[in-house]
Amino acid sequence: MNRKIMIDCDPGQDDAMALMLAASSISNLRIEAITTVAGNVDVDKNTRNALRLCDLLELKDVPVAKGASRPLVREMLIAADIHGKSGLDGTAMPEQPVKQTVRVHGADLIIEKLLASEEAITLVPTGPLTNIAMAIRKEPGIIPKIREIVLMGGGTYGNRTPAAEFNIFADAEAAKIVFESGAPIAMFGLDVTHQARANAETIEEIRAIGNPVATAVSDMLTFYLNAYQGLLGRTSAAIHDPCPVAYLIDPSIFQLEPVHVDVETKGEFTYGMTCVHKGVASDHVNAKFAGKLDPKKFWDLFYRALTTYSS
Amino acid sequence: MNRKIMIDCDPGQDDAMALMLAASSISNLRIEAITTVAGNVDVDKNTRNALRLCDLLELKDVPVAKGASRPLVREMLIAADIHGKSGLDGTAMPEQPVKQTVRVHGADLIIEKLLASEEAITLVPTGPLTNIAMAIRKEPGIIPKIREIVLMGGGTYGNRTPAAEFNIFADAEAAKIVFESGAPIAMFGLDVTHQARANAETIEEIRAIGNPVATAVSDMLTFYLNAYQGLLGRTSAAIHDPCPVAYLIDPSIFQLEPVHVDVETKGEFTYGMTCVHKGVASDHVNAKFAGKLDPKKFWDLFYRALTTYSS
Amino acid sequence: MNRKIMIDCDPGQDDAMALMLAASSISNLRIEAITTVAGNVDVDKNTRNALRLCDLLELKDVPVAKGASRPLVREMLIAADIHGKSGLDGTAMPEQPVKQTVRVHGADLIIEKLLASEEAITLVPTGPLTNIAMAIRKEPGIIPKIREIVLMGGGTYGNRTPAAEFNIFADAEAAKIVFESGAPIAMFGLDVTHQARANAETIEEIRAIGNPVATAVSDMLTFYLNAYQGLLGRTSAAIHDPCPVAYLIDPSIFQLEPVHVDVETKGEFTYGMTCVHKGVASDHVNAKFAGKLDPKKFWDLFYRALTTYSS
Amino acid sequence: MNRKIMIDCDPGQDDAMALMLAASSISNLRIEAITTVAGNVDVDKNTRNALRLCDLLELKDVPVAKGASRPLVREMLIAADIHGKSGLDGTAMPEQPVKQTVRVHGADLIIEKLLASEEAITLVPTGPLTNIAMAIRKEPGIIPKIREIVLMGGGTYGNRTPAAEFNIFADAEAAKIVFESGAPIAMFGLDVTHQARANAETIEEIRAIGNPVATAVSDMLTFYLNAYQGLLGRTSAAIHDPCPVAYLIDPSIFQLEPVHVDVETKGEFTYGMTCVHKGVASDHVNAKFAGKLDPKKFWDLFYRALTTYSS
Ligand SMILES: [Ca+2]
Ligand SMILES: [Ca+2]
Ligand SMILES: [Ca+2]
Ligand SMILES: [Ca+2]
Repeated sequence: MNRKIMIDCDPGQDDAMALMLAASSISNLRIEAITTVAGNVDVDKNTRNALRLCDLLELKDVPVAKGASRPLVREMLIAADIHGKSGLDGTAMPEQPVKQTVRVHGADLIIEKLLASEEAITLVPTGPLTNIAMAIRKEPGIIPKIREIVLMGGGTYGNRTPAAEFNIFADAEAAKIVFESGAPIAMFGLDVTHQARANAETIEEIRAIGNPVATAVSDMLTFYLNAYQGLLGRTSAAIHDPCPVAYLIDPSIFQLEPVHVDVETKGEFTYGMTCVHKGVASDHVNAKFAGKLDPKKFWDLFYRALTTYSS
Repeated sequence: MNRKIMIDCDPGQDDAMALMLAASSISNLRIEAITTVAGNVDVDKNTRNALRLCDLLELKDVPVAKGASRPLVREMLIAADIHGKSGLDGTAMPEQPVKQTVRVHGADLIIEKLLASEEAITLVPTGPLTNIAMAIRKEPGIIPKIREIVLMGGGTYGNRTPAAEFNIFADAEAAKIVFESGAPIAMFGLDVTHQARANAETIEEIRAIGNPVATAVSDMLTFYLNAYQGLLGRTSAAIHDPCPVAYLIDPSIFQLEPVHVDVETKGEFTYGMTCVHKGVASDHVNAKFAGKLDPKKFWDLFYRALTTYSS
Repeated sequence: MNRKIMIDCDPGQDDAMALMLAASSISNLRIEAITTVAGNVDVDKNTRNALRLCDLLELKDVPVAKGASRPLVREMLIAADIHGKSGLDGTAMPEQPVKQTVRVHGADLIIEKLLASEEAITLVPTGPLTNIAMAIRKEPGIIPKIREIVLMGGGTYGNRTPAAEFNIFADAEAAKIVFESGAPIAMFGLDVTHQARANAETIEEIRAIGNPVATAVSDMLTFYLNAYQGLLGRTSAAIHDPCPVAYLIDPSIFQLEPVHVDVETKGEFTYGMTCVHKGVASDHVNAKFAGKLDPKKFWDLFYRALTTYSS
Repeated sequence: MNRKIMIDCDPGQDDAMALMLAASSISNLRIEAITTVAGNVDVDKNTRNALRLCDLLELKDVPVAKGASRPLVREMLIAADIHGKSGLDGTAMPEQPVKQTVRVHGADLIIEKLLASEEAITLVPTGPLTNIAMAIRKEPGIIPKIREIVLMGGGTYGNRTPAAEFNIFADAEAAKIVFESGAPIAMFGLDVTHQARANAETIEEIRAIGNPVATAVSDMLTFYLNAYQGLLGRTSAAIHDPCPVAYLIDPSIFQLEPVHVDVETKGEFTYGMTCVHKGVASDHVNAKFAGKLDPKKFWDLFYRALTTYSS
């Protein structure tokens, strides 16, 4: 039977690839809902992008709800952006989506779905954790209905600052709430996502697949890589957000270990750091930490998923 | 015309007196809703107490909604309590209320009422600011519909710590959100509420009024004063929560000045302090600060309000 | 027998008055050393001013040593100044002192004197606590030789920020070291020093005394009051620094109570606050807190001290 | 000509190896002074160990001064110890040294030597930075006389906490002072020192050298490795402190890059983290960061240095 998931995202080229993976026909996941959150760009753009991706991936029955328009406590990040002005530059997808959102807040949709489902549901956040935190605080009764929170965020080092990764830095108070919630967590941070690197060759392989989804992904990756090269001078780029979805489809791609994670919210230079304690006693564990992935297996899965859109 | 208010509270003997004032027939206020929040006791007890008070005050048409069961970010305060085990000890009111809550979260009721009302509504929080903060973050569109937030909380000194008053200390991140929200704020902190002191004589004057509400208030005050005397050795006790309501009924009781308030959320010893900057430039003002009350006028209003329940 | 003291200061008109009190012939204090520290102006100016005051007060045998040129950890405060460009504007004293410093760091002079003295010595800091903290950390063996640290600083509210008084704000880490050192402390903060107010009438009374010291003090006060009036629009000004000296000469002027003081060094808005816990258990007491002074007795002492310079 | 250095240490087996390297006849360094500081064990033990090592290494003319007995601001670390009870367990060196300290505080010896030397001197701290910070604050005039501070400490990850390395964690305020001082800094943190790993084979190679110094080092390493194995279950151990000395003797062993380092002193979980910003503009650089060493070259140097003690 398929595993139920809800994806909370701020698309984002790599969020798009996460959605593509989850929606592909090799996936064992059933997407119950997609919710959006303010991230690199504002929540309205992110929501529009989520809807456009649903059109592309033909996710007609999946409800999409707009969520938090800013972080829980801290001021909104005004960030230079490698995702382009729309948050999802580079594709030939229509600017305006056909699909519409449901008229409920993202955090409320998460609560509703969890309370209504008999089986526990897995949450897959690939943006700041504002919606998840808001849902947890508004309805603590959802905790036992969360099978696992499989998230992209954090790491033992940062990309937004030396200490903090973007998703956690963007709303560290929300991350603190999530990591202290008691829900089971699997964390895919920079340590592992930096091992999922795409380069010019990757783009060519994807483009060769030839279906519209592969073409769109190839276009996005082209934009994304150019942005990376322009801003950071690198010829390859980490594809962060597909990692948690790839893990849910094929856990054997990754190596995880039990850890305790504290989220720093007070520091002068370290706000948003995930402090990962390894080798802790089992009663102190609050997350599984992904430290390694098998790049060949990861990209094989990725290409196979894209191929399923060909028929 | 009556001014619309919503009361967000954690009753609490002094919250009860605030409700009594607002519901009395000398009041120019129309209570649109009552919401509850975790404070000195848990939100379930606070909600039960709010319902019991509605029974006593015959607030049949006012919707009551249960709100946040714990603070936004910080851990829940486990506090020794001067309000008694039920949160509202001392009265002969029936333990179980007749009135029932509406089935919506307190924060959502605040959002709904604000969005549905043509005129702006005044919020009157007399507990931790969790619900108000949650509403502001979930639906920023409510800000222009808030006429004013007239709150009990903070001060230039504390009661929970040397720096922090209980309501702000209990959820400083929520208070930070509220004070930075841009909504107009009038703040009734310890500086002014400590001027509203009840003693044995007050109790006698109230008991002499003779109606059931006055008797209940007199009973509550007796318990409250005994608790103060037992814990702190004092023969009078500050009646905090009625102050913002008294101000809305008769602003001439109080002296206020424009200030800027910052809420400390990082300090080692000062978490939850409201840092009140006086004499600031007008474009830096984010609150009005109540520094003085006229005790005679205050108690006259209080007694008159109680008398209206006599018929 | 006279009580040995060392004065650590940043003169400053009110530091000057503290020195005048201590050096007067009604004083029961023997000044063992004067050390200087960076405060409102830099340590070189403060040192020059200390030497000029020694010339005026004929303190020929008291060694003066220059101390810390900046705070222990935090960056130096660049402060607008009510003390004037020299740090001691307003007097007709010669610009250049006759007296010279001893060639040892202020913190070292404090250590030397304490270790060399058979009886314990009282420290009287009237500026930031950098030298005292540095001495304590460099030679912890001085602690038992400190009879008491009778200091001007802190309070339950601030003047530099809503939470922090200047001397503590200027070097909160140093203050933390001092308050946690285990040495007996008597603290004269804003709560009490704001009760020692000078106005135009005070200046006239002092000028009428007619000796050179009284004239200098009267001149300084005139400058100081004008600065207060210009900056803050007030017609009276608090004379902070003489308070601890007045207490040593006549403790009956003041009311003190045992307290526990924590110094905030982490807060976002509260750096440098002295958090004063009253009513604490005796084994938690680390300071005596001066809450009240008798203004008449204070000014009587002050005038009498000035009169002794007349012969 | 030889480069003048002063070593500030808390020996410690790896401090001992740093001293051995610096004192060997292949070294181009002239040790002007050795100062000690509280670290894993108290400063008295560390001082005794420094003296014992001077006896072993025949450093008769090098003055040794005892320095700070505790951190600048924070409370003293009470740490479980992998260095053994004496701080330098494992050797057959006599318990009591022949050599005596000079009667001056470590921080003062550093100041004196710097001010007295015509050429600038390099500081080599291999313990907490308390003495260096104290010297800088007491006499800012030493900054231009510091050729470079080549230190063991920090890193992009921690060993004492997930964020902080021991030397910086033990006194982060001191580290902040040092990194903000303006003196040139070369930082050898865990990233590089973890590449200098000793194991059973290393011990055998060293023991085979056969002279008394090599035997002592071999004994120390045996104890140290056993402690590592017992506490952490590892069969090799990082030899941290010799790295900065090895760099001074042969810079070609290491790769360094210009960085900006901030030291966290406020965080809840990150106190003592060195936040290393790479790729910063040159006017923002405050340190060189060692990221890589050539293990073969490092150990070759180490063995060669030990061999020089054979004659
Ligand atoms: Ca994302
Ligand atoms: Ca209340
Ligand atoms: Ca002063
Ligand atoms: Ca060391």
